[in-house]
Amino acid sequence: MTLDFWFDFASTYSYLAAMRIEEAATVRGVVVRWRPFLLGPIFAAQGWTTSPFNIYEAKGRYMWRDMERLAGEGGHALVRPEPFPQNSLKAARLAISADGETWQPSLCRGIFQAEFAEGRDISDATTLAAVVESLGQDTGTWLGRIQEQGVKDTLRAQTEAAMAAGIFGAPSFTVGTELFWGNDRLDQALAWAAAER
Amino acid sequence: MTLDFWFDFASTYSYLAAMRIEEAATVRGVVVRWRPFLLGPIFAAQGWTTSPFNIYEAKGRYMWRDMERLAGEGGHALVRPEPFPQNSLKAARLAISADGETWQPSLCRGIFQAEFAEGRDISDATTLAAVVESLGQDTGTWLGRIQEQGVKDTLRAQTEAAMAAGIFGAPSFTVGTELFWGNDRLDQALAWAAAER
Repeated sequence: MTLDFWFDFASTYSYLAAMRIEEAATVRGVVVRWRPFLLGPIFAAQGWTTSPFNIYEAKGRYMWRDMERLAGEGGHALVRPEPFPQNSLKAARLAISADGETWQPSLCRGIFQAEFAEGRDISDATTLAAVVESLGQDTGTWLGRIQEQGVKDTLRAQTEAAMAAGIFGAPSFTVGTELFWGNDRLDQALAWAAAER
Repeated sequence: MTLDFWFDFASTYSYLAAMRIEEAATVRGVVVRWRPFLLGPIFAAQGWTTSPFNIYEAKGRYMWRDMERLAGEGGHALVRPEPFPQNSLKAARLAISADGETWQPSLCRGIFQAEFAEGRDISDATTLAAVVESLGQDTGTWLGRIQEQGVKDTLRAQTEAAMAAGIFGAPSFTVGTELFWGNDRLDQALAWAAAER
């Protein structure tokens, strides 16, 4: 069975999910479909103009401490990027354009690591180019795709599909119409997918 | 080491935590201090006049489905009480008045079960009296305590202590100044408490 992995590159808990999803899915024989989308329009529909972690101070303070504990347990570095949240539009378009490429998961993990392990700005094309280059891919070709109308349209459609699936935060996972929200639900979602295989 | 368990009787995920916390704590040799508080003033400080699960429709729809899956896994019944959220003021005062009694955890679990397993109204004193009676305690004595000024003041102080501890939702757990939020963090919080023992 396939599990759809919905994430926004600006999302802290999506970073944790991205770093472990392929290994956890392989163990269960589940195929992962990486589906970047933008939380911005979804948050805007809830009346938020930035991350709820910025709007609700106590929640934001807690999130960074929680991330610190979880990243530590997982053996991942954690840097708070400036600004937070990052503008993830280009990164999402780049990942969309690599849909179907065997290196798409590596690309996504590389972007998350540049942002949250190294504190680099993912709205800067040079950050994205460095990740593409580290995978042995042609930077000119792939960075060029970010500007293609078809890629822009696909990302917009993917965000609309996320809303239609009832998604309100990231990461989320879907198995058919069954929705799971949060890095904390990854294992339950994978078990669900494996049971439906 | 002691773990402080902060909960609101109106909170769905607090129900799940309440049903398993004593057994999980005993296994780890951790003592649990049950600390009911009111989310209302904390939500009001965030600009919310009701549960965020009512304000944010997609999030609320998801929460009930998530609760259904988790309650099923835990072998607990789940009924959506009307209204939701319930007014938990009397229940919290009753639990506060029983602080230090050996049957306080049973009282709390009984209230949660009346509400979320049987769909009874916990703002109704007869619901609370039935739980007190099932524990072999005198209903007149304990229901009378709800009206005592000292009990009212203690609940108010407990809610203020929750805010001061950085708590913004329920259930939450604290081990000293270390804060953990959500039923999903119960095991991590207990491990933290056990390590500090």
